[in-house]
Amino acid sequence: MSTAPAIAPDAERLRRRLDAMARIGASAGGGVTRLALTEEDGRARDLLARWLHEIGLEVRMDAVGNLFGIRAGREDAPAVLVGSHLDTVVDGGRLDGSLGVLAALEAAQTLEERGIATRRPLAIVSFTNEEGVRFQPDMMGSLAFAGHLSVEQMRGAAADDGATAGECLQRIGYAGERAPGDLPVHAFLELHIEQGPLLERAGATIGVVEGVQGLSWTEIRLRGEANHAGTTPFDARHDAGLVAAEIVAFARALSRERGPGLRATAGSLRLAPGAVNIIPGEATLTVDLRHPEEASLAAAEEALERFAAERAAREGVAIAMQRLARTFPIRFDPTLVGLVEATAHRLGRTTLRLTSGAGHDAQILAACHPAAMVFVPSRGGRSHCPQEETAPADIAAGAAVLLQVVLQLAEAV
Amino acid sequence: MSTAPAIAPDAERLRRRLDAMARIGASAGGGVTRLALTEEDGRARDLLARWLHEIGLEVRMDAVGNLFGIRAGREDAPAVLVGSHLDTVVDGGRLDGSLGVLAALEAAQTLEERGIATRRPLAIVSFTNEEGVRFQPDMMGSLAFAGHLSVEQMRGAAADDGATAGECLQRIGYAGERAPGDLPVHAFLELHIEQGPLLERAGATIGVVEGVQGLSWTEIRLRGEANHAGTTPFDARHDAGLVAAEIVAFARALSRERGPGLRATAGSLRLAPGAVNIIPGEATLTVDLRHPEEASLAAAEEALERFAAERAAREGVAIAMQRLARTFPIRFDPTLVGLVEATAHRLGRTTLRLTSGAGHDAQILAACHPAAMVFVPSRGGRSHCPQEETAPADIAAGAAVLLQVVLQLAEAV
Repeated sequence: MSTAPAIAPDAERLRRRLDAMARIGASAGGGVTRLALTEEDGRARDLLARWLHEIGLEVRMDAVGNLFGIRAGREDAPAVLVGSHLDTVVDGGRLDGSLGVLAALEAAQTLEERGIATRRPLAIVSFTNEEGVRFQPDMMGSLAFAGHLSVEQMRGAAADDGATAGECLQRIGYAGERAPGDLPVHAFLELHIEQGPLLERAGATIGVVEGVQGLSWTEIRLRGEANHAGTTPFDARHDAGLVAAEIVAFARALSRERGPGLRATAGSLRLAPGAVNIIPGEATLTVDLRHPEEASLAAAEEALERFAAERAAREGVAIAMQRLARTFPIRFDPTLVGLVEATAHRLGRTTLRLTSGAGHDAQILAACHPAAMVFVPSRGGRSHCPQEETAPADIAAGAAVLLQVVLQLAEAV
Repeated sequence: MSTAPAIAPDAERLRRRLDAMARIGASAGGGVTRLALTEEDGRARDLLARWLHEIGLEVRMDAVGNLFGIRAGREDAPAVLVGSHLDTVVDGGRLDGSLGVLAALEAAQTLEERGIATRRPLAIVSFTNEEGVRFQPDMMGSLAFAGHLSVEQMRGAAADDGATAGECLQRIGYAGERAPGDLPVHAFLELHIEQGPLLERAGATIGVVEGVQGLSWTEIRLRGEANHAGTTPFDARHDAGLVAAEIVAFARALSRERGPGLRATAGSLRLAPGAVNIIPGEATLTVDLRHPEEASLAAAEEALERFAAERAAREGVAIAMQRLARTFPIRFDPTLVGLVEATAHRLGRTTLRLTSGAGHDAQILAACHPAAMVFVPSRGGRSHCPQEETAPADIAAGAAVLLQVVLQLAEAV
């Protein structure tokens, strides 16, 4: 019995392409800054489009800049869509997004070179603006593809500098005419780095992603009274910074108390006036809550809001809370998830079932098509930073699983 | 029996001068921005110098820009020095500093108009850069006057924009030649607003200041690891923001636990990278501790440092602490303090003995000369903000007490 597949992707070619892509927007410290719809993003798209052309795929772009490479099937059936995104965060890593796009390209090229025609068409995709750094919302391209965001909404999105997504799309030459979603889809698959430490800790090579956590972002604005640190007794203080700090500490306590499913993070906190000897009159902080179960996520939101309101009242500080983002937890198609797991096992890979902690285009597609994800380990769990890394053998394993799952789906009735 | 003094300052003239001074650097919202050694500070000094000239005082400036108006005594004895400062914080109030300088001027003018010659000279002073906003250290002029800061050190102090205090002093025309401290001093007196709510709460008009709290400023830098908020389990987090928040909350708890003498404030806190979905990898915060007793202040410093180190270790976050400022608590001359109290009572004023929560030039002078302060109430305890205010009757009462104490000191053997 052999665990070697009949056909396998060219891991060395995939590595070279990842390297070439990582040079676009490379920062001095080894990271990549390739924000969506910038000139760097344009060059990344140009490179992908060139590769798609070179292997003979039909290159398409839709009106929100999603870039496709279509490999026709033996039948004009709904396509197997495979891909991810090419944009990054500021000084992000070289694999987040790029791996999924270039492994999909590698799968198509392997089939092409082996002369393997599939029943269904295979469509490679790079979705526009998954990260949402410069233009909101994030996962913009997949949202438009799934029909949750209109072309007008997407093109009207404005960056802090006043530029719109539509203008930037024109400038880099990726404002297509095709309506987003104008491609019948059989299933969507995305290979991605885990961006967390679970696979590494478990010693597993392939992450079988069962779903994506729900996410809730809350901005909390506190308005107390700036006053002299040396002269103001405590019973006369309205310290917005203290209330903010108590909320930050509470978020961690809540996570401890409610078990491992809940992840609560206070990522940003600003005080005003922010002087060493002035009681902070204003504080603005954000809390990021995630949970795989909707009921638990909603309960955590409620507990956070109750605590924040109670502490603000106690300190005599006005409070305003705003939901910046909210997604429901999603579960990937169980059949597809099972197929990923069985395929990985067939290839002799160790697997771990897990829930994605980060958001991905696949969760958007999952609302209207069967979808699944394949994870590979992130060294030290690091991501969104220059230290983001995955062992070459793990990248090869992930690409091989992706190719085999694609092949099976492309032949499926 | 009458409580009316034989002579009293002209409260209306003092009010007009406070108004005129407040127009220099006036901000739209009713506050004053007159940072030390700026063009506004220069204009404030010009106005004071003109008034000093007008009432016939000898105007002097020393090499660090301290501005004096000397009224000769019947004898060439050490002078009674009276004053405060003219600089403000950003968008500060109209009374902090100015009241003490202009009430001193008013005292001199009243004596002049009544033809009252005193045994000792009377010296009005406006010290350079009490607030320390643009150039550090604060209380720069009084430090130089007391011999704790050399002219070279003062002139070499650099602002964030690279300008030095010496250059700015030249530019506004107040780089005198006289050595700071070149004035024999019998005693120093400073009238000031309380900048806290104690007088108002007690319903007292005159604050008899027994001393100034000791102050300790600590900057705490925390370095953890920035990571993805959605994918990083808690046991893999090194959240610098969480540790910072725990320290902020601890500062308040420490104050509660150690009684009303301790005032702990976390005025500034910055996180990096500061994004909603990234665990803060770095945090920098400051803690301002104050206490009237040195032993208690030192104990609070130690408790803070122990807690911070323990929490940082628990979270796996590196910590570095730096003392930004440290002053010992000081006690004013008990005889002078008693004289202020008795004089206020003789004038029919209610008094409260208290410790100053804020730092003042008087505490610097107290190290080498008998010194004392007179406080008047701050409405709502507000200071360092446009809302800073004192009732006109309280200002008049404070100026009257100051004049009477000055008179007694100027006649004292």
